[in-house]
Amino acid sequence: MQTSGCLIIIGNEILSGRTQDKNLSWIAKELNETGIRLTEVRVIPDIEDTIIETVNLCRKNHAYVFTTGGIGPTHDDITSAAIAKAFGVPLEKNTDAVAILERHYDKAKLNEARLKMAHMPRGSALILNPVSAAPGFRIENVYVMAGVPEIMQAMFGQVKHELKGGAKMLSKTVSAYVTEGNIAAGLSAIQDRYPDVEIGSYPFVRQNQLGTSLVARATDASRIEAASAEIKALLLGLCDKVFEEDWVN
Amino acid sequence: MQTSGCLIIIGNEILSGRTQDKNLSWIAKELNETGIRLTEVRVIPDIEDTIIETVNLCRKNHAYVFTTGGIGPTHDDITSAAIAKAFGVPLEKNTDAVAILERHYDKAKLNEARLKMAHMPRGSALILNPVSAAPGFRIENVYVMAGVPEIMQAMFGQVKHELKGGAKMLSKTVSAYVTEGNIAAGLSAIQDRYPDVEIGSYPFVRQNQLGTSLVARATDASRIEAASAEIKALLLGLCDKVFEEDWVN
Repeated sequence: MQTSGCLIIIGNEILSGRTQDKNLSWIAKELNETGIRLTEVRVIPDIEDTIIETVNLCRKNHAYVFTTGGIGPTHDDITSAAIAKAFGVPLEKNTDAVAILERHYDKAKLNEARLKMAHMPRGSALILNPVSAAPGFRIENVYVMAGVPEIMQAMFGQVKHELKGGAKMLSKTVSAYVTEGNIAAGLSAIQDRYPDVEIGSYPFVRQNQLGTSLVARATDASRIEAASAEIKALLLGLCDKVFEEDWVN
Repeated sequence: MQTSGCLIIIGNEILSGRTQDKNLSWIAKELNETGIRLTEVRVIPDIEDTIIETVNLCRKNHAYVFTTGGIGPTHDDITSAAIAKAFGVPLEKNTDAVAILERHYDKAKLNEARLKMAHMPRGSALILNPVSAAPGFRIENVYVMAGVPEIMQAMFGQVKHELKGGAKMLSKTVSAYVTEGNIAAGLSAIQDRYPDVEIGSYPFVRQNQLGTSLVARATDASRIEAASAEIKALLLGLCDKVFEEDWVN
């Protein structure tokens, strides 16, 4: 059994196309290592009602919810306040978070805006931030992290050990310069023989040549090996060379 | 007034972290040029019920819905069939799509798997594919496109002219090596004076220096200019140099 995770990316800058999200694939891979499968991602704007509604829906449907973005000191950082409302608890100054900010900033620099970053929903546990001090937080199954990848990654590193997943999804990729249309029937037959292995087919263009990557995913390594051997044989019936990658996510 | 758009990214390969999505930001920028604002993105797995439910929800809530992924010839390409079910119409062979595939492929190569790509929900209009022939389709306000960026972009180019948006969102970015915490109060005051301009604050790290990009967005260029002038003055009170980018999305 796999445990299900959801990522909520909060930020107008992602939806406007200004900023290319880099957190999704990073978090997906990290979660997989703990046996949690990312099964839903939502990208939503910095609008309070939308954040409240999305968080409340996702935290019911998933074992773990992660949010990125909107916990800085400026007026457009509204995630913490919205999450307090989602949980129906007050947003209040977290004394541990204040102490962290006091250690990090000179007294003169610890202004009201920076202290805003110490405001969290009542009952939150801090997620420490080894990069820039201001912590994220966890409330129940919702992990609230920064949007800047370097900071988010450092925060995730602080909580990874406490995530309890199921079996880890393993995978093997076999690629070749063969087009999907030529292997679809044979591949479908292999998929039918391995209902417990998820076989994905992903076309690519490399050096102006069309190819396909076939990814077998399952929690049982021996089943992946068996399915991949059949995939490899299928490809080698149509071309001279295949490329294999083991155990990539 | 802005028209709202939604993107549904369909594919296990995005959720597993294997493939880095590049379609979101590209589509966001293109939509903005037509006065459509991307206000929601969902990333969902190749699971029929999930596709049906998500498409039916999003097409009610948005003027335009775009999907990427899952329209190829292999067993894991289930988007077209799921969308037919979402609309409650049969999935059937589209004769125009068949004609296109017949022109593109040698008769021997046009196998059943490739003909699968000509199956579409009844009532669909084709979205031509100048890259690899197999078309996408539109049904009502839902545009169904390929996941491979080069193909998706070519398909989008075929339909862009028919999208009817509202006022185009303009923007101006002013950046400086100033931290968010030092400008938050002043910035909030500017935001209060310009309720019709959306001011976003985005920290960055460049050459090991912390900085902030301030993005003013609105449909009225003169209001952006006025707000940006105040933002620039705020920054120049704290540092010697600002960087300006005009009319980026």
